[in-house]
Amino acid sequence: MPGMMDTVLNLGLNDETVEALAKNSDDPRFAYDSYRRFIQMYGNVVLGVEHHLFEDALEDLKFHCHVEEDHEIPVDALKDLIKTYLELVKEETDAPFPSNVHDQLWAAIGAVFQSWFSDRARVYRKIHDIPESWGTAVNVQAMVYGNMGDDCATGVAFTRNPSSGENQLYGEYLLNAQGEDVVAGIRTPASIAGKSSDDAPTLEACMPEVFQQFLDTCRILETHYHDMQDIEFTIERHKLYILQTRNAKRTSQAAVRIAVEMCQEGLISKEQALLQINARDLDGLLHPIIDPDAEKQVIGTGLPASPGAAQGRVVFDADTAEAWAHSGEKVILLRTETSPEDIHGMHAAEGIVTARGGMTSHAAVVARGMGTPCVSGVSALNIVRDARDASLGGHVIQEGDWLTLDGSRGEILLGQVRMMQPQLGEHFDILMDWADQKRRLKVRANAETEQDVQVALSFGAEGIGLCRTEHMFFEGERILAMREMIISENADDRRRALARIQPMQREDFRKIFFQMQGLPVTIRLLDPPLHEFLPHGKDEQQQLADSLDTSLTLVQQRVAALSESNPMLGHRGCRLLLSYPEIVEMQSRAIFEAAASVKKDTGNAVLCEVMVPLVGLVEELRQVRQIIDETAHKVQEETGETIEYEVGTMIELPRAALTAAQIAKEASFFSFGTNDLTQTTFGLSRDDSAQFLDAYVQRGILDCDPFAVLDTEGVGALIRLAAEGGRATRPDIKLGICGEHGGDPASIMFCEQLGLGYVSCSAFRVPVARLAAAQAALRK
Amino acid sequence: MPGMMDTVLNLGLNDETVEALAKNSDDPRFAYDSYRRFIQMYGNVVLGVEHHLFEDALEDLKFHCHVEEDHEIPVDALKDLIKTYLELVKEETDAPFPSNVHDQLWAAIGAVFQSWFSDRARVYRKIHDIPESWGTAVNVQAMVYGNMGDDCATGVAFTRNPSSGENQLYGEYLLNAQGEDVVAGIRTPASIAGKSSDDAPTLEACMPEVFQQFLDTCRILETHYHDMQDIEFTIERHKLYILQTRNAKRTSQAAVRIAVEMCQEGLISKEQALLQINARDLDGLLHPIIDPDAEKQVIGTGLPASPGAAQGRVVFDADTAEAWAHSGEKVILLRTETSPEDIHGMHAAEGIVTARGGMTSHAAVVARGMGTPCVSGVSALNIVRDARDASLGGHVIQEGDWLTLDGSRGEILLGQVRMMQPQLGEHFDILMDWADQKRRLKVRANAETEQDVQVALSFGAEGIGLCRTEHMFFEGERILAMREMIISENADDRRRALARIQPMQREDFRKIFFQMQGLPVTIRLLDPPLHEFLPHGKDEQQQLADSLDTSLTLVQQRVAALSESNPMLGHRGCRLLLSYPEIVEMQSRAIFEAAASVKKDTGNAVLCEVMVPLVGLVEELRQVRQIIDETAHKVQEETGETIEYEVGTMIELPRAALTAAQIAKEASFFSFGTNDLTQTTFGLSRDDSAQFLDAYVQRGILDCDPFAVLDTEGVGALIRLAAEGGRATRPDIKLGICGEHGGDPASIMFCEQLGLGYVSCSAFRVPVARLAAAQAALRK
Repeated sequence: MPGMMDTVLNLGLNDETVEALAKNSDDPRFAYDSYRRFIQMYGNVVLGVEHHLFEDALEDLKFHCHVEEDHEIPVDALKDLIKTYLELVKEETDAPFPSNVHDQLWAAIGAVFQSWFSDRARVYRKIHDIPESWGTAVNVQAMVYGNMGDDCATGVAFTRNPSSGENQLYGEYLLNAQGEDVVAGIRTPASIAGKSSDDAPTLEACMPEVFQQFLDTCRILETHYHDMQDIEFTIERHKLYILQTRNAKRTSQAAVRIAVEMCQEGLISKEQALLQINARDLDGLLHPIIDPDAEKQVIGTGLPASPGAAQGRVVFDADTAEAWAHSGEKVILLRTETSPEDIHGMHAAEGIVTARGGMTSHAAVVARGMGTPCVSGVSALNIVRDARDASLGGHVIQEGDWLTLDGSRGEILLGQVRMMQPQLGEHFDILMDWADQKRRLKVRANAETEQDVQVALSFGAEGIGLCRTEHMFFEGERILAMREMIISENADDRRRALARIQPMQREDFRKIFFQMQGLPVTIRLLDPPLHEFLPHGKDEQQQLADSLDTSLTLVQQRVAALSESNPMLGHRGCRLLLSYPEIVEMQSRAIFEAAASVKKDTGNAVLCEVMVPLVGLVEELRQVRQIIDETAHKVQEETGETIEYEVGTMIELPRAALTAAQIAKEASFFSFGTNDLTQTTFGLSRDDSAQFLDAYVQRGILDCDPFAVLDTEGVGALIRLAAEGGRATRPDIKLGICGEHGGDPASIMFCEQLGLGYVSCSAFRVPVARLAAAQAALRK
Repeated sequence: MPGMMDTVLNLGLNDETVEALAKNSDDPRFAYDSYRRFIQMYGNVVLGVEHHLFEDALEDLKFHCHVEEDHEIPVDALKDLIKTYLELVKEETDAPFPSNVHDQLWAAIGAVFQSWFSDRARVYRKIHDIPESWGTAVNVQAMVYGNMGDDCATGVAFTRNPSSGENQLYGEYLLNAQGEDVVAGIRTPASIAGKSSDDAPTLEACMPEVFQQFLDTCRILETHYHDMQDIEFTIERHKLYILQTRNAKRTSQAAVRIAVEMCQEGLISKEQALLQINARDLDGLLHPIIDPDAEKQVIGTGLPASPGAAQGRVVFDADTAEAWAHSGEKVILLRTETSPEDIHGMHAAEGIVTARGGMTSHAAVVARGMGTPCVSGVSALNIVRDARDASLGGHVIQEGDWLTLDGSRGEILLGQVRMMQPQLGEHFDILMDWADQKRRLKVRANAETEQDVQVALSFGAEGIGLCRTEHMFFEGERILAMREMIISENADDRRRALARIQPMQREDFRKIFFQMQGLPVTIRLLDPPLHEFLPHGKDEQQQLADSLDTSLTLVQQRVAALSESNPMLGHRGCRLLLSYPEIVEMQSRAIFEAAASVKKDTGNAVLCEVMVPLVGLVEELRQVRQIIDETAHKVQEETGETIEYEVGTMIELPRAALTAAQIAKEASFFSFGTNDLTQTTFGLSRDDSAQFLDAYVQRGILDCDPFAVLDTEGVGALIRLAAEGGRATRPDIKLGICGEHGGDPASIMFCEQLGLGYVSCSAFRVPVARLAAAQAALRK
């Protein structure tokens, strides 16, 4: 956690020891300067006196002495400043400054421990998923002084360029200074090597011998730690001291290049290269980003729901989004929350912003799936839809205004901020190739549109782990037929409506099978409750009534009858399929006819895995499976083609996990739907919990959002039970994970430990999953 | 399943064997009568020819022969009838009647097996929770004939009175007849003993010796089977044959008396007496019932959500219910569904009917808790609230109309149907006393009002297992203060509002502690989401705004901000308590001050168990517990009284069960909230599932409603894991169950197997639970 923890320099000085330091160093100015620095730093870090009080006194003094730089202050003035500082501390803390050096030491140690709990440390941990429980150590080091004269210096250096990854020393230093001077920016540091920005001499030029020693040391440290180093050093009278070295932070792009090059240089093995990269960070490489040098005005923040940057003109509803996009506008869709009815608008939009919903809200999941940048849960966003405007951070946003959003950081920016496209480059390809050599887990993608499938394949997906068929019902003609089916009051009318959807659905599957060229495709039968397909506004209901030649009242009655108090726990998944078996008939016929047709056209077998959602009881699966099998049989007879298919289920309910041994009797595969499984295991709706989950993480109740990182203790225990139960009944059962967690490295590690067969994630996260799978295999 | 399975009599007869039977019996009329009976019965049961076709032919024949009774038909006419019957069968089935006796036998056996799947058998099984998978056996018996002349007879008898339980032979018989004549009601049977209704001679009078033999046989059978018998017999030429005997069905009242008296007679042990009674049936004894002899018109049916009969004048909202009840009217509350806002009206009503919701919907749970009869899920009920009327079964029901409801059968009856109050009597007390001697499980009640607690104690509750504090916030002044708290935007305003509720809440607890006299009381802190307390109609919102001196807009904004997509999985339970710790402070202060005050007044210690709801993470419990402990400490200091209290949690989320070992570190007790645990384990909302759960049971996907009978495979697996985990950490942890299942005998058996400490159920089910607990201990 670089820069997050506190430090106290020059500890041990008091009115007595300062004299000895002055005498021993033969430099009273240096000794008194060190003493006043100590009082200032200890006063602030340990005693809590505000920093600016010291700075004000120092500035006053410099003003009276007519000097500009700290090191120009005369010794006597420094002695006066020390008195002022000591009085200031006494006044502010109601106690004299401690002169006993042991007291100083113990209090400083305590303060550094305490700094683990500082706000900035908490925020840093939250961003980097570092558990609070880890705690910190405190180092006590002897002092060396970079402020003993012009043969002294202090600085920081990176052994390679942390931004590009180029293998070239990169760092800054100050002559006659202590570490905090470099950080504080009072003086402008010079470059260590190459050319300084303001033509100040480089360390290489000033102290060529020390510089050479430093270069050699850097190489020794890189070789020793097998990683690029971030080094703090001090030169005391021409003698080089390394104060600290650690693995350096770097951009994702640099990380890839450094790992690959260090391996090529023989410094590390392929395994080490793979493990050196934080797989999660790769995500940032795959999407456009805000130009780091661009000017920007952040007017609101939310959750970084889908990475990448996007900009466009604001619209407040899906129809407008689609219409404007059609006429060539780039649009950003702003919604309080999204629903499946908004899909066409989400597809048309460059980016999506919602006022409500967490990392796995509808908007977030769909956006990640599409690779569309999204910021969700912007709670300060207040949308007044009728007025076609919104307010955020004191700004009024009107339809047509330009906004930019940064989905990787969860930021909303005013206007059009400059963006850039990151280059993947050769190093990336080499790394992915190594990852594929080392991983055991297969990586599939969650995809259903032609475009998604294309992206998934280009990123190296080895199959489709989740093809959600409900998204297919929202386009054009289909939604009308779908609604007609829902309004129908008997199975015959429903069949008639479904018959109109079937050819289109068959064409969807044909395209996917064709693209996938024999790779496995898991198709989930219809999952959401029917009311998600019905319009809720009166105008749209009237339209529907007109186009179905029925009355508004009937439509409204049906909408009311289908409404549920807790739709997440309602009439959906296989419950719906059992109530309306004609849906299963239509969908499996579309799947099998598509498979037979592609097989005929290409000569390649299509491996389709038909997945029944929301099973909690083995008998549910058995009864749905029966319809699927019968349909497969019929289609095989009709087409004369043998169809390779398997029937399996999502494991997304605790009961399914607990009775997996039974369910495996009817299932050739289990796919862990960890989004829903997390919801039911925690009894926590992802749509409603964004607000307090955040507080939970802040208060240490949860280490991280369980919808982003798999809860291995609770949800994981169920997955383990299900894997054991499934294998007990069917030793060769296929096991995979297709929730949002399929793209999360920590969760992928857990999948590797359980020996699952594959992970499936949104197309854009496939490279992340490939690397994480390799890391998991290596760590195991 | 008496009367549910099919039978074929006289099998083996054909044109050939009938001659032999005529010759051997020396009674052609008897032989041809048996043959035509066989064709008729076999034709109907095995070949599926409609019964009335045979009956019509028989009636035609009697009309032409000028006879009234079957046995008066001349032999030649019978021969003609047989020909008619054989032709009828051929015509209806397109095949001749089978004359091969082996074919007859195998087909009849198949038909009886098949009758396991008849509609009536399915319905019977559903009512009596008999799994379809049990299947049936088929008995093949040699024929004896009750229709060979006037020295022959057939009948059925109960060894005791199945209605009152009185130890007196009770039965009916017919001279010269076969079994189906008794059942079909063509001739009116006479009593076996005592006095026949129409002065027909009794069997005792007709055949005194055979009667004595029958009496002796009854005693032998009762002694052998240790239970009251339901016997079918035939007398063939003065010789008694027992065709069948089985344990007899009886009313609940009779069951209690028979068990107690048989034990007192030395026929069975106390253990046998206890095991002989279906504990579930006791429920019917504890509530008023519809007079079985009353005329009634059933206009609708729903779920038997809360037992007992009730009648009153229909109202459609809670306020009217309360107002009318206040002025002395008996009212029945008809609602589409109920919410906590309706509590006052539900309390005021004699009975409750809802159009939606299952056995554990809000209406059902609250009604059972109050002992108020309730029929829920009357899907045919269509309430048009504004018009103040409703339609059901073709009837328009207006406000003020009289309705009667039977909550034990789930029936809605037109008008005022005569009801009666069952008497518990001495036998009931003796039986309960025996149960208490044999059971290990303690029985507590779920109760929060003074009245509930009184009922619970009178029924023998040994503590309160669930005192729901949210119900306490809906009365009079409190709801306003509660709403004020919810509308508040900062902790200080919330504290001010809560301070007004606190004295009332303390008074609630004082009353309960005082009544319970040192028995344990488990108090659950506030559980439901806050929006349940806010009004949803615009008028009520305006009223609230006025009384809080704020704007309607603000109230509406707050209502909108608090609304949730899936409230069951939302911001409730300990999640709410952690967001608003001042609620925990107020509630625990009220609890502890009440405990201190009752201890001071009575000198008896009060054992209060403070229960934190919806815990899924140990840290949630730890943080809430800290507030409770601090408050307890403060109250002890302020009052100088030591307070006996424990802190524990509901286990109602899968994650809590899976991580029980951790949670037990902070919990002195676990109370299994099996309603919510069932919802989350199945991913099934009890409010939304009533409709398709019914179909699930009918289609054999589920054996029974998991909200009524604990799902031991899935939910039970979690309870087992939690009990093991809890005991591993804390061997003396108190374990109990407080969901609706606490009063269900099958679920109580499971609690006994796991060695839980107690079950807690609604006050009116306490006797059921006491008996079921004894049975479980004996069966274990």
